[in-house]
Amino acid sequence: MQRADPQDFARVLSSMCTIPHPEARAAAQRFLATNPGDPGTYETVAALEEEAIEMLGRIAGLSDAAGYVASGGTEANIQAVRIARNRARNRDGSTDPNVVVPESAHFSFTKAADVLGVELRRAPLTDYRTDVDAMAELTDEQTVLVVAVAGTTEYGRVDPIPEIAALAKAHDALCHVDAAWGGFVLPFTDYDWNFEHAPIDTMTIDPHKMGQAVVPAGGLLARSSELLDPLAIDTPYLESTGQVTLTGTRSGAGVASAVAAMEALWPDGYRTAARTAQDNAEWLTAALTERGYDVVSPVLPLVAADIPRATIEKLRDHNWRVSKTGAGELRIVMMPHVTREILRSFLDDLDRLD
Amino acid sequence: MQRADPQDFARVLSSMCTIPHPEARAAAQRFLATNPGDPGTYETVAALEEEAIEMLGRIAGLSDAAGYVASGGTEANIQAVRIARNRARNRDGSTDPNVVVPESAHFSFTKAADVLGVELRRAPLTDYRTDVDAMAELTDEQTVLVVAVAGTTEYGRVDPIPEIAALAKAHDALCHVDAAWGGFVLPFTDYDWNFEHAPIDTMTIDPHKMGQAVVPAGGLLARSSELLDPLAIDTPYLESTGQVTLTGTRSGAGVASAVAAMEALWPDGYRTAARTAQDNAEWLTAALTERGYDVVSPVLPLVAADIPRATIEKLRDHNWRVSKTGAGELRIVMMPHVTREILRSFLDDLDRLD
Repeated sequence: MQRADPQDFARVLSSMCTIPHPEARAAAQRFLATNPGDPGTYETVAALEEEAIEMLGRIAGLSDAAGYVASGGTEANIQAVRIARNRARNRDGSTDPNVVVPESAHFSFTKAADVLGVELRRAPLTDYRTDVDAMAELTDEQTVLVVAVAGTTEYGRVDPIPEIAALAKAHDALCHVDAAWGGFVLPFTDYDWNFEHAPIDTMTIDPHKMGQAVVPAGGLLARSSELLDPLAIDTPYLESTGQVTLTGTRSGAGVASAVAAMEALWPDGYRTAARTAQDNAEWLTAALTERGYDVVSPVLPLVAADIPRATIEKLRDHNWRVSKTGAGELRIVMMPHVTREILRSFLDDLDRLD
Repeated sequence: MQRADPQDFARVLSSMCTIPHPEARAAAQRFLATNPGDPGTYETVAALEEEAIEMLGRIAGLSDAAGYVASGGTEANIQAVRIARNRARNRDGSTDPNVVVPESAHFSFTKAADVLGVELRRAPLTDYRTDVDAMAELTDEQTVLVVAVAGTTEYGRVDPIPEIAALAKAHDALCHVDAAWGGFVLPFTDYDWNFEHAPIDTMTIDPHKMGQAVVPAGGLLARSSELLDPLAIDTPYLESTGQVTLTGTRSGAGVASAVAAMEALWPDGYRTAARTAQDNAEWLTAALTERGYDVVSPVLPLVAADIPRATIEKLRDHNWRVSKTGAGELRIVMMPHVTREILRSFLDDLDRLD
């Protein structure tokens, strides 16, 4: 079998990961044999992880941030649910917890519900964003967590986060924001999405997506370290106090590359990348609309267009890595590696194949 | 702060990770931007993961192996518990499951119990191995999983695995073997530990430990793919069927390096490494015994010695990365980077400081 070069991203339009920044790659290579899950042994990477969390906090409007560098958004989302479940259990013996999420929430919340044994309640959307009234109807005194998405996986939309946080507070539930993909773009928009904008408790924000770190480098932020306490497990034979992470061994390469990428790019490099991606999203939207395709108007750099299923299959046969929304639209994520030149080449193939 | 070079392992005696094989490092560097959690986009690494599982199966006596490359032993152990819990729930609505583990089980089982809401029952040991009679007393009809350890974290001991597997079968429970560290050493011993030796269902076996891959590359093996079915979560917007992993994004670097390490080292390279490590363990045991320290006789390459706590602190102040057993013994793991020369230097410091 002829295998694609793993470093060739020229036809990858479906991924939320991208070509790492050169400094991120170099840092990762130095730390390939380190494990931040064993901070007593690997002190250098443990110190770097503190820097990573401080920098992520700065991006997300949080001084004195708590949290850790996770394997990705799935781990961070599962942990946010676990924090809320354990907090409620420890406080009042809650045994029948539910979590209220938008219909647009990533499938990792389905996984979290199975893993953690919580009920998942899905609130419908209006124009691709959570309907807060509908969400309120689903929220009750067994609700331990209410989730908002800042940059949905399918359409790049941002939920009304202050209203959702207020709803959570009114029910004494925690509020989690999933900004796994959006977190490195939103600082350059007018949206209310971060810890300064609303009383949110935890956030997923992934350096290995728009942050241009290597895989795996996800991020879980918490407003205070007390929020992480209900996760702590004793760690005999490690020279450290309890472990709050879901995984045990973790990637030092991911941690080091996250710090290197953020040092190189925050804020100017990320601002430029966000602007370029947004320009490309709007350019592609115009080009597709001109050709007669329906396009969901992009508010963040992610384009969903109604292209026939058969054409999507042909594009795939021509090695375009593309994916579909649940509604069947072609979905193109404007990651930093997706240049105007690549989009032109994609349109050429689309014109030829449709 | 002067930080230790993350590539300097000359004083790391406490880790179960090690310097990666050069081929493993090179492969990891090529795959730093890939995500086997999105196999429709990253087909090359998805194909490599199939090879990794096939090779791990060969090492563990299993043809037609199912499983995946996890972040490490913690994820693999949690998933083994999740398989057993979900299987029992789907089959007979079990809502009060318990898991029986040896006292020597890794702390990841404590984490699994919290995360998954199962009761953990710990069987006492006799001479550092599980007492199977005691384990049998803890096992009942709510037991969904019985765990054995093949190479304990503290003393490198191997449980009586065929007896434990028979106990599990007698209760219609699954049997899991944690060979996270031992799995690349045990093929060169006379122990019964693998899928051919006993009717075990799942196994943890980590390429990033004695397998000499980069971090993170753990391994979960299952006797059949049906065992993984109760984990599947639907994955809209990924061009793949359900996802059975605990994490979502995973490390392509870990997958590629695992394949590269196993191709380079199985079986002869691992045999040599295991023999050298065992020779070093016996040499160090003799040297420590001669000095009057009590040493727990090593059956796999891991030495635990009764060295005064104050001396351990002094060694640590001299930058030796050492850790302690629950009983307070100094614990030295004979990873491939721990050479005879390093051990001589360690003994020199010990003689000077104690």
